[in-house]
Amino acid sequence: MTGGFLAPSTGTVVKAVLFDVFGTVVDWRTGIASAVREFASEHGLALDPQDFADSWRARYVPSMARVMGGERGFVLLDVLHRENLEAVLAESGIDPNDFAPEVLDRLNRAWHVLPPWPDSVAGIAALKAHYIVGPLSNGNTSLLLDMAKAAGLPWDLILGSDVTRAYKPDPAAYRGPAGFLGIEPAEIMLAAAHPADLTAARSLGLATAFIHRPAEYGPRAAQPAMPAGDWDVAATSIIDLAAQL
Amino acid sequence: MTGGFLAPSTGTVVKAVLFDVFGTVVDWRTGIASAVREFASEHGLALDPQDFADSWRARYVPSMARVMGGERGFVLLDVLHRENLEAVLAESGIDPNDFAPEVLDRLNRAWHVLPPWPDSVAGIAALKAHYIVGPLSNGNTSLLLDMAKAAGLPWDLILGSDVTRAYKPDPAAYRGPAGFLGIEPAEIMLAAAHPADLTAARSLGLATAFIHRPAEYGPRAAQPAMPAGDWDVAATSIIDLAAQL
Repeated sequence: MTGGFLAPSTGTVVKAVLFDVFGTVVDWRTGIASAVREFASEHGLALDPQDFADSWRARYVPSMARVMGGERGFVLLDVLHRENLEAVLAESGIDPNDFAPEVLDRLNRAWHVLPPWPDSVAGIAALKAHYIVGPLSNGNTSLLLDMAKAAGLPWDLILGSDVTRAYKPDPAAYRGPAGFLGIEPAEIMLAAAHPADLTAARSLGLATAFIHRPAEYGPRAAQPAMPAGDWDVAATSIIDLAAQL
Repeated sequence: MTGGFLAPSTGTVVKAVLFDVFGTVVDWRTGIASAVREFASEHGLALDPQDFADSWRARYVPSMARVMGGERGFVLLDVLHRENLEAVLAESGIDPNDFAPEVLDRLNRAWHVLPPWPDSVAGIAALKAHYIVGPLSNGNTSLLLDMAKAAGLPWDLILGSDVTRAYKPDPAAYRGPAGFLGIEPAEIMLAAAHPADLTAARSLGLATAFIHRPAEYGPRAAQPAMPAGDWDVAATSIIDLAAQL
């Protein structure tokens, strides 16, 4: 019932297609900017929502690097997002202590309800008929669960980074899910919009699919062309990926 | 969006309905007997499929008890099922070594593709509109995933016993999922056909729903009436549970 595509890079038939989420499945920048706009308006703050979203996201990789580097133990991405929010507020000349914790918690929850790209729900649903589908994200399980419920993402299962307790590009993040799925890492294809993520997955024996998301960084960012890279598949959307598989 | 039912036992609004699976969501006895019938026929063995299914299942609780008691480390339920299969074959006067390991693996996989009760898919789908739905089972993730794909069980997420690394009635099995879901144990309702399972859940602060499955042990077994017990809900099916919640 499941599987079918023979991945050239691994010589193995793919059984599961797991997705990077932020940027690949959901449009984090639009979702976060919208929540920041509402927050700024409620509290009479002069903030550029898009810039704020970019600054918040810019702290994402460095904050995970401290966990992966062993500087601190594993903490949920929710906790990192919340700390990073306070840092970006302070950087913007706003004292985070001016707000009740619940107010910042609510803004932080914007990461739980990010809007999907227009093709995500239909593309994942099409893949689900032939493959196991799920996220392979740095998001924690409850974040990914809330997002799936809000956006209607029809995952088969959700194993967040708090299950493997590893953030990409830690090898455990890529290889851990196979054990839970009862399959080999080579039977998993990672679908992602970010070449670095795919490179790490490929080096660990997973099949790879590049999904082109030129709008991820917004209208002002340079629109990268479909980057070169010998991925097993390169697709313009998740619907296109489903058609190719 | 999620939740709604105020559970009398906890005074808390339920956000997630998690299900015992073997017997509550799927008809393990019919599924296993059918696989055993096919196996016996292929290999010319005189086996009573229903009796064999009962004997295989009878070893389930004792085999998990050895793990919970610390006699051995955590192993997947797949491994316990496989060991128990060899024991039941031997008990039936059949040498398990007469079969290629793949043949017994295939029979063992019958636990991955058990048929749902007639109301399970529709009932879970109805609950999913208002609650987080998932299994809270001793099955490992891949077993529950294969079962969901085969039967069309529309879970929001699947966290098998290999995620919490605990078998019910270990308290960690009941309380562990809350952390991944980002909610409190009292916001979880366990739905199960077995009073002992519900009693353990209730003692750990979960809400409880009893689902009456008089046919679980087959036509020859005594058909228990709806047992007394102060569960938050008692239902005749998962559709009935959805209607009550």
